[in-house]
Amino acid sequence: MKRVMLTVAYDGTNYCGWQIQSNGNTIEAELNKHLSELLGEEIKVSGASRTDAGVHALCNLAVFDTNARMPGEKISYGLNQRLPEDIRIQESKEVDGDFHPRFTATKKTYEYRIYNSRFPNPVERLYSHFTYVPLNVDNMQRAAAFFVGEHDFKSFCAVGTQVESTIRTIYECTVEKNGPVICIRVSGNGFLYNMVRIIAGTLMEVGKGNLNPADVPTILEERNRQSAGPTAPAKGLMLTAYEFV
Amino acid sequence: MKRVMLTVAYDGTNYCGWQIQSNGNTIEAELNKHLSELLGEEIKVSGASRTDAGVHALCNLAVFDTNARMPGEKISYGLNQRLPEDIRIQESKEVDGDFHPRFTATKKTYEYRIYNSRFPNPVERLYSHFTYVPLNVDNMQRAAAFFVGEHDFKSFCAVGTQVESTIRTIYECTVEKNGPVICIRVSGNGFLYNMVRIIAGTLMEVGKGNLNPADVPTILEERNRQSAGPTAPAKGLMLTAYEFV
Repeated sequence: MKRVMLTVAYDGTNYCGWQIQSNGNTIEAELNKHLSELLGEEIKVSGASRTDAGVHALCNLAVFDTNARMPGEKISYGLNQRLPEDIRIQESKEVDGDFHPRFTATKKTYEYRIYNSRFPNPVERLYSHFTYVPLNVDNMQRAAAFFVGEHDFKSFCAVGTQVESTIRTIYECTVEKNGPVICIRVSGNGFLYNMVRIIAGTLMEVGKGNLNPADVPTILEERNRQSAGPTAPAKGLMLTAYEFV
Repeated sequence: MKRVMLTVAYDGTNYCGWQIQSNGNTIEAELNKHLSELLGEEIKVSGASRTDAGVHALCNLAVFDTNARMPGEKISYGLNQRLPEDIRIQESKEVDGDFHPRFTATKKTYEYRIYNSRFPNPVERLYSHFTYVPLNVDNMQRAAAFFVGEHDFKSFCAVGTQVESTIRTIYECTVEKNGPVICIRVSGNGFLYNMVRIIAGTLMEVGKGNLNPADVPTILEERNRQSAGPTAPAKGLMLTAYEFV
């Protein structure tokens, strides 16, 4: 028996998210199906980040245990020949039998992309959220800086989420503009359910002038989901980096 | 009667190219259909660049004549509400009645994107050509420089193309690497059929070491399609800029 870790990239457009659902296809279900066929035994992967429907990833992580003789680093090649083209293993390797990325200290980075122009761009439509309302990027940058550090992010967590603690540490939160594309980059030691999308929705409210940058500390203090902005649409979100710290 | 010019962006993935075909959907057919419905008269657009099946554009141009009273600059809004989401008008405006972008001196820019890594990236798959063979970008840059200037591009034109002259002027031909993405950018006063894709295919042969940079002048001199590299796949190609000079 050995444990193998996969680095998984996917275009989330056509999936009901990572986690197995009864009512639609998921990344986890695809991995289980094709790994089981490849290795000739029933495989169940365990993922590091349960991304939502429509969210993309360059590097989600998953582990599974197998008795198969195929070397861990070869599994990526065999699996990629079977997977649909919107899922691709970037790396497979053997890890310690008790290792799990979800229970290991990590720095995760998400990017949220906004296409801010008069009209949408068809080749950006799957991987960004479009808005024609001009966004003030300077104010978004000022607002973003308030997220950095250890805070109680209860205001930035979907209502009804079961979680032991809503305290998280954000290492970096930046806003960059490159032509019509505005990219919000957030890295931290962990994220609550919908947290990055609510941060993005709140920063867009700042960009539109509906909130001031200095409102962010107040919203954090209020510990109330109603105080923050809306949850930004899933398709603008991508998990872009995973580091063990 | 007035003439209106459209700037058209599209994701070419699901189209049989620009020009109307009997056997599949095209950008031209979609524009004609939705413009005719919007303006209440039969509209036939005339495009500037007849891009191939699978090729993308940020800014192809098309003109049409109409008796409709709707101001030219408003047509973009009405048309975008009707078009499928993989086609979006970026601008519409009235132009002189005898103006046609195909018969006006222009500088056109194409980009060809290559995703060069061990495994494909799902979120790049629709807008780049994947190869795992490591490409030598320095050599590709040296080779690209030989295309700049006025040359006979017969070696870089699909066999059987009917054309008065195969002489074209290339203003710029560069190769840039940004992580795993290699971008070939070519601008010129006009392009022969498949010319940019054959340039890209030839530069990839240089990158792989199957050709030397100094082979490019020889290939140009030979005026023989067989001398150049293969035609690179359509999905890596995008028309990115159109300027009147």
